[in-house]
Amino acid sequence: MTVPEAMIEGRPAHEVLAWSRDLLDAAMRPAVDTLPSSMRHIAGYHFGWWDEKGQPVEADPGKALRPALVLLMAEAAHGAASMAAPAAGMAAPAAAAVELVHNFSLLHDDVIDRDETRRHRPTAWSVFGDTAAILAGDALLTLAFDVLARSGHPAAVQGAATLGAAVLDLTEGQHSDVCFEGRGDVGLAECLGMAEKKTGALLGCACALGGLFGGAGPEQVEHMRLFGDRMGLAFQIADDLLGIWGDPEVTGKPVFSDLRNRKKSLPVVAALTSGTDAGRELAEVYAEDRPLSGDDLVRTAALIESAGGLAWSRAQADDLLAQALGHLRSAGVTARAAAELSALARMATRRDH
Amino acid sequence: MTVPEAMIEGRPAHEVLAWSRDLLDAAMRPAVDTLPSSMRHIAGYHFGWWDEKGQPVEADPGKALRPALVLLMAEAAHGAASMAAPAAGMAAPAAAAVELVHNFSLLHDDVIDRDETRRHRPTAWSVFGDTAAILAGDALLTLAFDVLARSGHPAAVQGAATLGAAVLDLTEGQHSDVCFEGRGDVGLAECLGMAEKKTGALLGCACALGGLFGGAGPEQVEHMRLFGDRMGLAFQIADDLLGIWGDPEVTGKPVFSDLRNRKKSLPVVAALTSGTDAGRELAEVYAEDRPLSGDDLVRTAALIESAGGLAWSRAQADDLLAQALGHLRSAGVTARAAAELSALARMATRRDH
Repeated sequence: MTVPEAMIEGRPAHEVLAWSRDLLDAAMRPAVDTLPSSMRHIAGYHFGWWDEKGQPVEADPGKALRPALVLLMAEAAHGAASMAAPAAGMAAPAAAAVELVHNFSLLHDDVIDRDETRRHRPTAWSVFGDTAAILAGDALLTLAFDVLARSGHPAAVQGAATLGAAVLDLTEGQHSDVCFEGRGDVGLAECLGMAEKKTGALLGCACALGGLFGGAGPEQVEHMRLFGDRMGLAFQIADDLLGIWGDPEVTGKPVFSDLRNRKKSLPVVAALTSGTDAGRELAEVYAEDRPLSGDDLVRTAALIESAGGLAWSRAQADDLLAQALGHLRSAGVTARAAAELSALARMATRRDH
Repeated sequence: MTVPEAMIEGRPAHEVLAWSRDLLDAAMRPAVDTLPSSMRHIAGYHFGWWDEKGQPVEADPGKALRPALVLLMAEAAHGAASMAAPAAGMAAPAAAAVELVHNFSLLHDDVIDRDETRRHRPTAWSVFGDTAAILAGDALLTLAFDVLARSGHPAAVQGAATLGAAVLDLTEGQHSDVCFEGRGDVGLAECLGMAEKKTGALLGCACALGGLFGGAGPEQVEHMRLFGDRMGLAFQIADDLLGIWGDPEVTGKPVFSDLRNRKKSLPVVAALTSGTDAGRELAEVYAEDRPLSGDDLVRTAALIESAGGLAWSRAQADDLLAQALGHLRSAGVTARAAAELSALARMATRRDH
């Protein structure tokens, strides 16, 4: 009996994330255990497993969105509608590899950006020093490729090339991001390009790897990648909004965190390039050198909103999400997988609503 | 007609290095060209191909010892005695991967150690900043795995696991090295262990990868790895001696460079743990905080020699080289390959003689 598509409902996003977390941890813990002890110690602290002395703690491990995308896409590619689909299990090394790459980049980005807080805890460099955090990032990046190589999966080699391309995009995106901070003439298009590399590339890679490990063909993999890429850009915009208007209780970062160091995030650049009076006033604030007081920060955020930065960001995120869902349809995945991926995409891109 | 072993002579080391450099460059240049432009720019400067503005220069590219080991071992494993052995060509991606990993580690180590000079030129971080150097290191590490994955070689997956293990050793070795600088009780055994991870592991990996890409069996690969590992440790000792007594014209680093920041290199630790009066006096110098003057540096070097640090280092390097050559014999490579590998090992470990 064929079930009509509209009748099929997937698991809600929080249930998918919990399911994915279990599969991920089962792949991650043994992999991290193979690290040299010094690196394992720093990695375990960063993942929220242990405190700085190596004692177990219950810290926020993050949602692990990227691994969930890998595993869902693997199921989707496999066309398995059963709850016990084996495709997700086979794709667990790919999910771990993507999560390891994500955390490598967090470790290095925190050193580069001098961010002191991550997931409500002091960042690794602020506890162990720059050297330890740089080396631990190197170790996680290496472990990501190692996990793929040792997976024994027929798609391991192609997966490594896919992952490598995403990491290279990531380095360029982060480099541009840092360079933009010292420039007064950043355009919206190049800022979107930067965000696509910094965030879109790895989410696209997560979806492509899931497809590859689930046995999808080249055209299907490409639509999966584009779903992740578009969704990733929408996710970055949502993250940028949280960097300005997010609740510190939710984000684990100080209020107005991105404005404190005059970060040229997408809502800010949209405001700066808006041609409005508020945009020009914002440009003056950004051109100054002095630290911004609490009142300054409130006023700066208001300028971004007046200049249309908030409205542009929301509209842009909606548009990107629609594009992502279009690629999901073109990928021709099962109705259940589509429902779950859509739910995850909506949660990830509008997580403050 | 069988040629008696004693009659077979290989190419001299400088000729092997030139041959290897050509094969390496043919693999490296197209690989580096696939990097995002910002990363390619920094990498090209670091490799000595371009100046900081991207204009071609003729800078010292380094000897590229590690790729030469990969290529020679691939030939040795292949059992090919002809000059036009195809094994070396097939192993070129492995040679490039090892050289990329070596240079990733140089980029990060220079940031960590705040070294301002590398191969007679300002280090990448001192020209482009820490962020750029960290990210360019990340990009080269990623490219190493990418080059292996795209090689299409049947040993690519096993090669990636082998390379990954060496990089993890490297991160731990570098972490220990930095930690040792802040400790007053570093023992000789743990210092040797650190050097084995920091230097031996990647030279061992180079030899093992050459073997794998040349089609060697597991036992042969293991002897090849041990040849590289022992030789790498001898090489590190030779490098440590250069860090104290090396001619700046040859090393490209300031005279007494390792003593300036009171580095606990192997000759120093051998002297510190010698139980001699000179060793105790050296410990006092190392415990002080004040910068060392030119006269201090001369006196410190003399103390290391009086305490037996120089003699121990030379004897240790000889012993390690003998062990390395023993593993080369056990690996059962052709007489010509053995002659060339021995010549390379002697040059690398006694390059100041």
